[in-house]
Amino acid sequence: MIVKTPEPPYFAVIFSSFRTEINDEYNETFENLMLAASELDDFLGMESVRDGFGISVSYWKSIEGIREWKDNLQHIAAKRKGIEKWYESYMLRIARVDHDSYFSL
Amino acid sequence: MIVKTPEPPYFAVIFSSFRTEINDEYNETFENLMLAASELDDFLGMESVRDGFGISVSYWKSIEGIREWKDNLQHIAAKRKGIEKWYESYMLRIARVDHDSYFSL
Repeated sequence: MIVKTPEPPYFAVIFSSFRTEINDEYNETFENLMLAASELDDFLGMESVRDGFGISVSYWKSIEGIREWKDNLQHIAAKRKGIEKWYESYMLRIARVDHDSYFSL
Repeated sequence: MIVKTPEPPYFAVIFSSFRTEINDEYNETFENLMLAASELDDFLGMESVRDGFGISVSYWKSIEGIREWKDNLQHIAAKRKGIEKWYESYMLRIARVDHDSYFSL
């Protein structure tokens, strides 16, 4: 789904990745992380799609919100498992969105 | 594939979309557009994945490069067809990447 973001500026974390073949706890952890992120005031939502290669973009009101998420213990534990088990490679990018444009039929 | 981007800052265009069921000329146009974008000096590459919902992120050295692409006639023609035929809804976001972090096994 397309996240309903407020007027720019806001922030995006773009996570591009290739997974290993290990699925152990992956889906469950992903869902729990989404629940945990949703509890943060500055979290706006996440767009995510995978077909072999995956891109997930989470949106945030502020850099402080992203920092708070970075320091979240549940997130830190998941990140460790991600490196140990789930990801073959990834790139994480933090960006400030300055302009957006929506279209719908 | 994960685009090999330079040291930040650089720029990202995040395009999140739902397609219609019309495929007419879509793949061919997408490939031709990628070729045309690759000819621009400031184009760094594109990451793209679709599984119903789609996210494509193109990376650029500068905002001027994004503007040049916005004014490209081939791109303008494709955008028109996109609105008429291929997309049910989309959000396009322009962002400045200030930080990134790469991991590989």
